[in-house]
Amino acid sequence: MLQLDTQSLQQKMPQTLKSTVMVIGGAEDKVHGREILHTFFTRAGGSEAKIAIVPCASREPSAIGDRYNKIFTEMGATSIELLDIRERTQGEDPKWQEYMEECTGVFMTGGDQLRLCALVADTPLMEKVRMKVREGKIVLAGTSAGAAVMGHHMIAGGGSGESPNRSLVDMATGLGILPDVIVDQHFHNRNRMARLLSAIASHPDRLGIGIDEDTCAMFQGDGVIEVIGKGTVTIVDPGSTFATNEQQVGATDPLSLYNMRLHILCHGDRFELRQRISRPTHP
Amino acid sequence: MLQLDTQSLQQKMPQTLKSTVMVIGGAEDKVHGREILHTFFTRAGGSEAKIAIVPCASREPSAIGDRYNKIFTEMGATSIELLDIRERTQGEDPKWQEYMEECTGVFMTGGDQLRLCALVADTPLMEKVRMKVREGKIVLAGTSAGAAVMGHHMIAGGGSGESPNRSLVDMATGLGILPDVIVDQHFHNRNRMARLLSAIASHPDRLGIGIDEDTCAMFQGDGVIEVIGKGTVTIVDPGSTFATNEQQVGATDPLSLYNMRLHILCHGDRFELRQRISRPTHP
Repeated sequence: MLQLDTQSLQQKMPQTLKSTVMVIGGAEDKVHGREILHTFFTRAGGSEAKIAIVPCASREPSAIGDRYNKIFTEMGATSIELLDIRERTQGEDPKWQEYMEECTGVFMTGGDQLRLCALVADTPLMEKVRMKVREGKIVLAGTSAGAAVMGHHMIAGGGSGESPNRSLVDMATGLGILPDVIVDQHFHNRNRMARLLSAIASHPDRLGIGIDEDTCAMFQGDGVIEVIGKGTVTIVDPGSTFATNEQQVGATDPLSLYNMRLHILCHGDRFELRQRISRPTHP
Repeated sequence: MLQLDTQSLQQKMPQTLKSTVMVIGGAEDKVHGREILHTFFTRAGGSEAKIAIVPCASREPSAIGDRYNKIFTEMGATSIELLDIRERTQGEDPKWQEYMEECTGVFMTGGDQLRLCALVADTPLMEKVRMKVREGKIVLAGTSAGAAVMGHHMIAGGGSGESPNRSLVDMATGLGILPDVIVDQHFHNRNRMARLLSAIASHPDRLGIGIDEDTCAMFQGDGVIEVIGKGTVTIVDPGSTFATNEQQVGATDPLSLYNMRLHILCHGDRFELRQRISRPTHP
């Protein structure tokens, strides 16, 4: 039985993150209020924004890139570059690293998170993005697959409609922008609670974050997640007295997970990463 | 914002329940090991068992009743009665109340929980069953719809694939055998976490119990839930610092639920209702 002292994680959690990292649950409004995309645009500098779109998760990077390009152009961004990387070597291209020097916001689209990681993980370009985020110089946003890659441990796929079990979730290595969380997206929309719990059973030193569609968990420099959008952000906190049978059972056996804390947060709610407590909108 | 002191609930919880009440998540094994059904049979007295089958939730009560009749006959029960109630007046039939005097186990089948309640709630027969459970004289089991009716507040129906919201769950009044819990069944199999959370937001003075298929939460006289079967029992405990925006938002708006405790329990795990703590199988 794994008994866990999360003290170290709680101290480590907020790290030296200075930027806003916007983790979006997919299917964000692109037509009407565009609240989440507009928040990204605003935080990236508004009319001063210099935006990079990373469409590499998609198998139709031009089409999806053009769609976001049009949106941010309509909002009035100063410049927009489409980092249409189709081979890893393109991640070494000096022109894009140069653009990163002046860039104020990076937006990663949806698609397949394994594809995105395969193309950009550990490239000089992505290291530059990571450094700029750490320095508080750019706003980073990712939606759907672009959200899934944020953690060190990444949910690459999985199922639903079963008791939590290890084989219900496929794990891989993400970009590690927010290393201490495991992100799942389209969360309640695609009934992903059981797979997030299955992931947490294997990695109880992480915080599980399930984000609904058209909803964003904004990780802010002050160690606070703020929720915006139409749905909920689910936080599964294994906490300091967590225990699991994960080490004792087979891959398809049901998992026990004892003594977790659970928060369902809506627009305006805040969650303090250091203390692991939620701050309601309606106090 | 509703702030809740669950002290009173925690003291009230185990009540004067002396019997075992077996709350089964549906689709229990009827062919091979029949573990859950055999446990019911054993606790009802084994070869001494005098069993009543309540098939009223089903629209095919004869067929479903016969199926369980055959199973318990094969196991070697002394007597079996099918309480095939099709009108509420039958719940006043003295012959069935007499059978209750010697009956050692009552089994409620699946079907539609609203139908079951409409036919038997508050009838003299059901009052007799309730009294016998309270006195520790019979084992009561219910599967699927027969499980849903156990609480005072009953989930009558609902949806999935959405952020928790009030309109995601239809509530009704159950039989109140275990008044302090809200039961959901086919739980992870049908992705019902969001609807159970929606129910808890409206009734945070209750404990949410989600039971997977072929799995049973056995409420025992000592105030302990013991889990048996193939899947998991999910316990959503609003706890003493719970809060929600349920009173502030519209019926289809997403719900916030702060500071819950969550346990996923497997075969052999135990949960103490008084202290609200889980007792792992693998300590």
